[in-house]
Amino acid sequence: MITYSFADIGSDSLYIHLYKCIKNDILQGILQAGEKLPSKRSLAKNLNISVITIENAYAQLIAEGYVYSIPKKGFFVADIKSLHKKEEPILSTENVQLSSGKSNYLADFTSNQTSSEHFPFSIWAKLTRELLTHNQSELLTNPPCGGILPLREAIAKHLKDFRNMTVSPEQIIIGAGTEYLYGLLIQLLGFDKHYAVEDPGYNKISQIYESHCILCDFVSMDSSGVNISDLEKQNIDIIHISPSHHFPTGTVMPISRRYELLGWAAKSDMRYIIEDDYDSEYRLSGQPIPTLQSIDIQEKVIYMNTFTKTLASTVRISYMVLPKHLVNTFYSKLYFYSCTVSNFEQYILARFISEGYFEKHINRMRNYYHSKRDLILHTIENSPLAAYATISEENAGLHFLLKLKTNLSDKEFLQRMEHSGIKLSSLSQYYQVPPAAVEHIFIINYSFVAEENIEKAIQMIYRALF
Amino acid sequence: MITYSFADIGSDSLYIHLYKCIKNDILQGILQAGEKLPSKRSLAKNLNISVITIENAYAQLIAEGYVYSIPKKGFFVADIKSLHKKEEPILSTENVQLSSGKSNYLADFTSNQTSSEHFPFSIWAKLTRELLTHNQSELLTNPPCGGILPLREAIAKHLKDFRNMTVSPEQIIIGAGTEYLYGLLIQLLGFDKHYAVEDPGYNKISQIYESHCILCDFVSMDSSGVNISDLEKQNIDIIHISPSHHFPTGTVMPISRRYELLGWAAKSDMRYIIEDDYDSEYRLSGQPIPTLQSIDIQEKVIYMNTFTKTLASTVRISYMVLPKHLVNTFYSKLYFYSCTVSNFEQYILARFISEGYFEKHINRMRNYYHSKRDLILHTIENSPLAAYATISEENAGLHFLLKLKTNLSDKEFLQRMEHSGIKLSSLSQYYQVPPAAVEHIFIINYSFVAEENIEKAIQMIYRALF
Repeated sequence: MITYSFADIGSDSLYIHLYKCIKNDILQGILQAGEKLPSKRSLAKNLNISVITIENAYAQLIAEGYVYSIPKKGFFVADIKSLHKKEEPILSTENVQLSSGKSNYLADFTSNQTSSEHFPFSIWAKLTRELLTHNQSELLTNPPCGGILPLREAIAKHLKDFRNMTVSPEQIIIGAGTEYLYGLLIQLLGFDKHYAVEDPGYNKISQIYESHCILCDFVSMDSSGVNISDLEKQNIDIIHISPSHHFPTGTVMPISRRYELLGWAAKSDMRYIIEDDYDSEYRLSGQPIPTLQSIDIQEKVIYMNTFTKTLASTVRISYMVLPKHLVNTFYSKLYFYSCTVSNFEQYILARFISEGYFEKHINRMRNYYHSKRDLILHTIENSPLAAYATISEENAGLHFLLKLKTNLSDKEFLQRMEHSGIKLSSLSQYYQVPPAAVEHIFIINYSFVAEENIEKAIQMIYRALF
Repeated sequence: MITYSFADIGSDSLYIHLYKCIKNDILQGILQAGEKLPSKRSLAKNLNISVITIENAYAQLIAEGYVYSIPKKGFFVADIKSLHKKEEPILSTENVQLSSGKSNYLADFTSNQTSSEHFPFSIWAKLTRELLTHNQSELLTNPPCGGILPLREAIAKHLKDFRNMTVSPEQIIIGAGTEYLYGLLIQLLGFDKHYAVEDPGYNKISQIYESHCILCDFVSMDSSGVNISDLEKQNIDIIHISPSHHFPTGTVMPISRRYELLGWAAKSDMRYIIEDDYDSEYRLSGQPIPTLQSIDIQEKVIYMNTFTKTLASTVRISYMVLPKHLVNTFYSKLYFYSCTVSNFEQYILARFISEGYFEKHINRMRNYYHSKRDLILHTIENSPLAAYATISEENAGLHFLLKLKTNLSDKEFLQRMEHSGIKLSSLSQYYQVPPAAVEHIFIINYSFVAEENIEKAIQMIYRALF
């Protein structure tokens, strides 16, 4: 029977020492593939140690594949030639930085970040200090799963004031980002439903649906927004749209299409419309069109909005407004989830809104973006680029479309831009199958581009044309 | 043809006024079910208003079900008897408060909340103030999807110091609560896998799996933890366990079972173990047993932990440690998700850990819980309850088991407790089919119970016995 000395055990425990001895013998070929090991009891007796020690050593050998056991027969040496230690995968730092907003671009026309000079740091600090001093008990009391009531009340009032929506706080569900809320919605509405997103559209939404293994298709758009007959033809249950300001085309859905869409939804109990109102606060001119939610009397619209655009992309607070009958379904199906936003930030934001700071902030930012847009448009007008550029959809949200006269393919042009330190995306990238007509159209999302770099960036765009 | 006056239009828009007039005629029976409405064009001409106004009015009538359209035939009055306006569901405030931690109990032995006197408010305020002043740009820069690097580095170091785990920051994924991370894990490992949780166990985990419409079964436990042959028999792919301190039984999985479990996982590429180490920081006596993660050389263990127990249940920060090969899968499949925890709190926590405050906090809390546990045990010993009580599993985590001699059913006993202002749960509630042997065993989670109420609570428990 195998026998080992425990003299040179060092700092190892008994079982680790025994494990190492046997493993070594297997690696050396002293114990050969198929050979039967002594039973736990007899080896314990032989080595004068406890059965449990043998058991632990054998268990580790089994876990690592050196030994296998056959029930009621015993333990056998494995064929270690077949033991392939997994190759150590390389963790690339590039991978880990994915989706990080760090950037060395001269101008990044794709980022949703806000620059730090515009975040209301001093008010935020003041509110934080006051809460940490005077509201300690509230901060540590678990919130309802939909979020703390003061924040939901503040949002309800904001929606009334800014969007003329009549919503009770109970209908509002707070979550750590819109992406998280999509996941909740799938759980609420069902994995068996047929979802759809707009084509063209924001890729991330369909990625989330795909990642949840649910059926998600693309519905074409015409100049008024999502195509109703395509919805019918594809037998869609739930459509995800951004009627106030479509990304990336900038289309604003007219009222007639809104009603048609509500009419489509009313035809089946399965049908719902997810209305993403992500940047409605930044409409720069013209009358705002009422939200679908506010003209929906059949309870077919789930309204979503976020503070990542208006406040900061790194403060992860979004919300959805559920139709009343879905509120009850939500609480009966998903009551067990904790709210994903920290109480601390919920209370800060609640006071930020209810004490009027949010409204002031939005007004300030709207003016800032307005003048930034004008600066870009003015810079283009007064540059040689003007002769090669057509601008459209410049009145809503924080981006517009720039059509360029060039013979370069979009891919080539974007590569040239990348080399010049400019990050840009093309309209064609947002289509499943880009039609020829959208070639040479680029998206100028100007929220994160520094004003002092605009002139240089426009020059670079011009130079890249030839 | 129908004709309406626009004299008394008031503040309504043209189309709303027209919509109201037609709707009124339908409700009055002036326009009857099946009647054809004039075409948009002819009505526009008749009323001398634009076609688009008619279109909008018709669209709203369609959306509300008063009118239906037949393609190429026109618009018809609907049968309004069949129009059932949805009954307004009642939004119960009780619903909305669900999962809220507000409580009027004399003693709540079920809550995971921490009381505000133990949260390090002044340090938190200091760190927040410093960050809001000196790190504005970092705070607004989008983090990598796995979380900011300084926090992941701080956690990696903490895991080395406290759990002797060697983990690179890249393997750590930060998320807004463990519940959210489970959702991510399902997307990472697959909706088609066969998941399992421990029976008995923490209900919420299986609720999350069910809510994602995936196959989730229950695996029985013996005195060493989850039963391996039951795993094999049920053909489980992914098992969710808490080996350091099982909730609610308090079982600590011995090393031999840990290796057996790793051996089980090694047998198939589909198999993984999710190790939830949720309250290992609060082991009150005895040697800690190494985590499964630290003895796993086959990359089969996904380690999870949270700051909700150690810091506050309302600060939603948890993390998981992925085996290296899964890190790459994570970044290639789920890179598009934004991190769900606000940058602000990620940076605060990173400094809280790396500057040594977290270690001090844990030590202080461990002492506090230690003395609180002793106070409860001492109070029981010196009360008439002692003759009717047996205590077990009191050395780990923040709960122990109290077995009572009583003829009351668990349900009856819990009701009596509820009437006395004491919230308690029974061991039997955590079983799918509770065996008779677990009757009369109650879970004393003492983390949230105020010390001054302990004596009174023990009296109440005693009185409820008869």
